[in-house]
Amino acid sequence: MTGPQLEDAKAMIAAAEEEAEDVGVPMCIAVADGGGNLVGFHRMDDALIASIDIARNKAYTSVSLKLSTEAVGEAAQPGEDLYGIETTNGGRIVTFGGGFPIEVDGDVVGAIGVSGGSPEEDMTVARAGLDAFESGE
Amino acid sequence: MTGPQLEDAKAMIAAAEEEAEDVGVPMCIAVADGGGNLVGFHRMDDALIASIDIARNKAYTSVSLKLSTEAVGEAAQPGEDLYGIETTNGGRIVTFGGGFPIEVDGDVVGAIGVSGGSPEEDMTVARAGLDAFESGE
Amino acid sequence: MTGPQLEDAKAMIAAAEEEAEDVGVPMCIAVADGGGNLVGFHRMDDALIASIDIARNKAYTSVSLKLSTEAVGEAAQPGEDLYGIETTNGGRIVTFGGGFPIEVDGDVVGAIGVSGGSPEEDMTVARAGLDAFESGE
Amino acid sequence: MTGPQLEDAKAMIAAAEEEAEDVGVPMCIAVADGGGNLVGFHRMDDALIASIDIARNKAYTSVSLKLSTEAVGEAAQPGEDLYGIETTNGGRIVTFGGGFPIEVDGDVVGAIGVSGGSPEEDMTVARAGLDAFESGE
Repeated sequence: MTGPQLEDAKAMIAAAEEEAEDVGVPMCIAVADGGGNLVGFHRMDDALIASIDIARNKAYTSVSLKLSTEAVGEAAQPGEDLYGIETTNGGRIVTFGGGFPIEVDGDVVGAIGVSGGSPEEDMTVARAGLDAFESGE
Repeated sequence: MTGPQLEDAKAMIAAAEEEAEDVGVPMCIAVADGGGNLVGFHRMDDALIASIDIARNKAYTSVSLKLSTEAVGEAAQPGEDLYGIETTNGGRIVTFGGGFPIEVDGDVVGAIGVSGGSPEEDMTVARAGLDAFESGE
Repeated sequence: MTGPQLEDAKAMIAAAEEEAEDVGVPMCIAVADGGGNLVGFHRMDDALIASIDIARNKAYTSVSLKLSTEAVGEAAQPGEDLYGIETTNGGRIVTFGGGFPIEVDGDVVGAIGVSGGSPEEDMTVARAGLDAFESGE
Repeated sequence: MTGPQLEDAKAMIAAAEEEAEDVGVPMCIAVADGGGNLVGFHRMDDALIASIDIARNKAYTSVSLKLSTEAVGEAAQPGEDLYGIETTNGGRIVTFGGGFPIEVDGDVVGAIGVSGGSPEEDMTVARAGLDAFESGE
């Protein structure tokens, strides 16, 4: 049930960077621990500077709500359960894809957040990082 | 690939002011560099005071996302890719027209943000500023 | 009793820029109106990026307290009357020299704020801007 | 005059981590570019979580004021030139040691910020990161 240590975060970020190079879009990649606190962050050259905060906030969102940011986004649409949640935590909740919780034995122990491309691209890259954590255990 | 220096910003703002006079609406006009930091800002007499921050934030939005604020606004609608993005960067993302990135050889090196009228009017004025940068190179 | 219009602000900033060139330090120069709202701002090439907010906040401080920022700084020292005032207005109060109120017939109608060098240098440059307002009336 | 790219940041952070292990204190290490925007960040296992923001803000401080945070701290003491500066930039100015600008040919192109131990320890670790940038050029 241990969350991502720095070595885990480095491995996750390295795998995500490799995937981002395949996708062909420079990304910002953040890994947070179970307390929502940042463990590691890399901005690839030429990645959007808005993505610095978005990647970090996607990681915060996924660990703090134990959901992917894509799922949060679905619930945040007008008329849905969590409409307006993007303003409830000081601007740290993100409502589009690219953040995933890191789970160990059913417990959320951290999260990865990726930003820089479309939500689909960000999710692809984030999943590569997540896979590296799971295969590294 | 050099971003707007103060002389560039002055020329852009002067051209935008002239256009705003033609449009007949007093505007706030801001120019930021490639790091999102303000280079120059003018508020025309009687321009809306809310537009001070909006113009600056439109410039920040366009340089940090490498998109016009109009394009950000389309992607930020309910059900679209970036729904909720207006809260992810400390209140600095604007989701309606009037901000444009400044591009040199395909690289975003800064941005202009205009506020004071309708988004259409703001875009017309911002484009005049952008033209002044491009013709001045 | 009219505060600085955009033309006044431009003249003040131009005079301040000229003085800053004589001083040999690139500066950020801001002019605010009697409501504390920004009228004009220029960042000279290579000026400190921290100075963007500091110049604007010096202008806000001087108009909102009707004092030079140097005078505010003296009153803000430990044991003095306004100790701690730098935290009372959302981070917009500056407690070192470089901001001056603009006065017309004894009324404060705006302010100039300059940042980039030492407080002494900033005050020299701000005074040059202030002189341009007074001689321009 | 190019600022730190991701590879530079990784090398700086790795060297700083190694030094922090020698010092025996887990640290947070941040590298920012010339616009004050984060390039890379690592939190060593068991490092203070307050240090996440402090490290990032030390890097911001050093690039935005072109000074070490130690020098900023000296000037920010009661009665000194920049007394009160810690509140002028939205809480991002740090007034104790651990941040240094990265200079290339006399230009500030970025900064490193380290937090986790005493200011002396943080400075030792930050200098190791800085050396890695300089030797890597």
